Amino acid sequence: MVSTPTLSSAPDIRTDVLIVGAGPVGLFAAFEAGVIGLSCQIVDGIERPGGQCIELYPDKPIYDIPAIPSCTARDLVDRLMEQCRPFDPPMHLGQRIESLEALEDGRWRACTDQGLAFNAAAVLVAAGNGAFVPQRLMLDEAPALEGRSIHYSVADVNTFAGKNVVIAGGGDSALDWALSLLPVAQRVTLVHRRPGFSAADSSVARMHEAVAAGKMDFVVGTIGQLHAPQGRLESIDVRQIEGSARIDTDHLLVLFGLVAALGPIADWGIANPAGKIPVDTSYYESSRPGIFAAGDIAAYPNKQKLILSGFHEASLALRKAYTYAFPDKKRVHVHSSYDAKLAERIAAVHT
Amino acid sequence: MVSTPTLSSAPDIRTDVLIVGAGPVGLFAAFEAGVIGLSCQIVDGIERPGGQCIELYPDKPIYDIPAIPSCTARDLVDRLMEQCRPFDPPMHLGQRIESLEALEDGRWRACTDQGLAFNAAAVLVAAGNGAFVPQRLMLDEAPALEGRSIHYSVADVNTFAGKNVVIAGGGDSALDWALSLLPVAQRVTLVHRRPGFSAADSSVARMHEAVAAGKMDFVVGTIGQLHAPQGRLESIDVRQIEGSARIDTDHLLVLFGLVAALGPIADWGIANPAGKIPVDTSYYESSRPGIFAAGDIAAYPNKQKLILSGFHEASLALRKAYTYAFPDKKRVHVHSSYDAKLAERIAAVHT
Repeated sequence: MVSTPTLSSAPDIRTDVLIVGAGPVGLFAAFEAGVIGLSCQIVDGIERPGGQCIELYPDKPIYDIPAIPSCTARDLVDRLMEQCRPFDPPMHLGQRIESLEALEDGRWRACTDQGLAFNAAAVLVAAGNGAFVPQRLMLDEAPALEGRSIHYSVADVNTFAGKNVVIAGGGDSALDWALSLLPVAQRVTLVHRRPGFSAADSSVARMHEAVAAGKMDFVVGTIGQLHAPQGRLESIDVRQIEGSARIDTDHLLVLFGLVAALGPIADWGIANPAGKIPVDTSYYESSRPGIFAAGDIAAYPNKQKLILSGFHEASLALRKAYTYAFPDKKRVHVHSSYDAKLAERIAAVHT
Repeated sequence: MVSTPTLSSAPDIRTDVLIVGAGPVGLFAAFEAGVIGLSCQIVDGIERPGGQCIELYPDKPIYDIPAIPSCTARDLVDRLMEQCRPFDPPMHLGQRIESLEALEDGRWRACTDQGLAFNAAAVLVAAGNGAFVPQRLMLDEAPALEGRSIHYSVADVNTFAGKNVVIAGGGDSALDWALSLLPVAQRVTLVHRRPGFSAADSSVARMHEAVAAGKMDFVVGTIGQLHAPQGRLESIDVRQIEGSARIDTDHLLVLFGLVAALGPIADWGIANPAGKIPVDTSYYESSRPGIFAAGDIAAYPNKQKLILSGFHEASLALRKAYTYAFPDKKRVHVHSSYDAKLAERIAAVHT
């Protein structure tokens, strides 16, 4: 189901509906598109389908999917992947839609960061809470040091070989990297705003042992000022309850966890300041005709972030999308079981 | 789960939400009510839960329930019954809500045809296409003869013992009763508008055999005029392609099949002439505050008769219903898995 990125010189991929997001709502939308006779293409920034269900809580039990008394988020995604299989929707994973432009004929052109381009009659944004990005350090001087002295993930452990490293954060990533970099770095200092951690007890115990053995430092406080006179980090002031402590360091590894970020969707002119897409509640269409939103990213009065609501929103949006894809056709199918040929096609896969 | 009807002198049953209809949407509504902390009571005119799923197409495969690639209507109902089990919603089956009146304190009082009375903060109508009733004979003189000479079902076979009986219809019921009444009645005449039938081939063959053997009559035509000079049926004119035939008879058994009928809901002042209940699309509330509609009976622009839409409609309606039940409380729960105690209660049943 996964297609590899092609060169930007490749022709636009023409489709009825471009589905942005391969979470539960995007996957069900692909099934519904097939049921009502629309072709679709799915794009998601994450390398695998499932969206936040898989990224944030794969093993958490879910009880409120109608007619499924209990399942994990992973089960749910598996079931939805199975359900859309009769229509085999093409998925382009690990890439994000970077641009979206209205074409003169009323269709939309969307390009990914990896050079894919789509020409679609309608776009259904089912992007959940948006892409997940590392929470940034909120200091004015930080962005200029990003990549050289300030890091939000570890791309290459050798960057830290023989260096002084400050790791900021109190979750599993912060603890795990603090312990992993011990044998690599010159000196590791863990900085966290409070003595307690939101991490595995065993990691916390191992960190305290390392501190007690003099192998690393742990400082309670928050990152205050960064000193980088030559454009490279030299030291950090850590603000504490009383006064502050200066720590000499070459690198600062910030591991504050992931936060949702709308990403380029914010630039399409359809999102509100809160990063949601306001839609009407009959068609779930945004302020731009042909662009729809379903699931957690859709905004309307009394919107509830229920997965089941996303299913409904996507189903209704697609029926309006149909009128953009086939302006001259009168659609007749509504239920999957009313159309004998369609039912046969689905049954061939599922029974 | 089924409670027996009580005498009309019983005190009103006080509940947060009265759910009218025990089809898929009503059953899921009972689960959702439990999740958000609302008590509920369910009433349905049919003797078993499941609504039209069970009455009309129990074994038909359904493919468009999200995350359930394939199931029968019966499976779906079984799953929904299981899902709402942690909240054990009281069901009052085989009785219909006959009256609904607004109380001075803003609550609603509803009474069933069997003398039960409910006092509810909100009412959720999930009655599908309404109750199913036999299709009536469209003749002005018919209603006056109903029950005595004209029948739409067989309450007691002895009614027809030794009598001349005309059976009108071309489905399984008409064929089955024509054959079943042969040994009971004086003479059975089957009247159908065309020579073909929508019934089991074996029944049709048996009927033709009986006609060939002179044991019964089959007349192609439609019921024209009824003659009942003394208030009792004496004969029927059957309209045929050329002219008409008069048949002497004591009883007319009309078996034209079931049709959906809104029933008493039509009198509550919330239904449109098409028998649907117009609602807004944020709360699925009708023109009367506190009365909601979800599922096939709800009407709004672009309404699709999808079961998944009913789930969404009911979920949102209940959140507004909550504000009627608890006007002073700020509700916090949204997802079943966010509230640890609730999740435990559900998990105790489902794992």
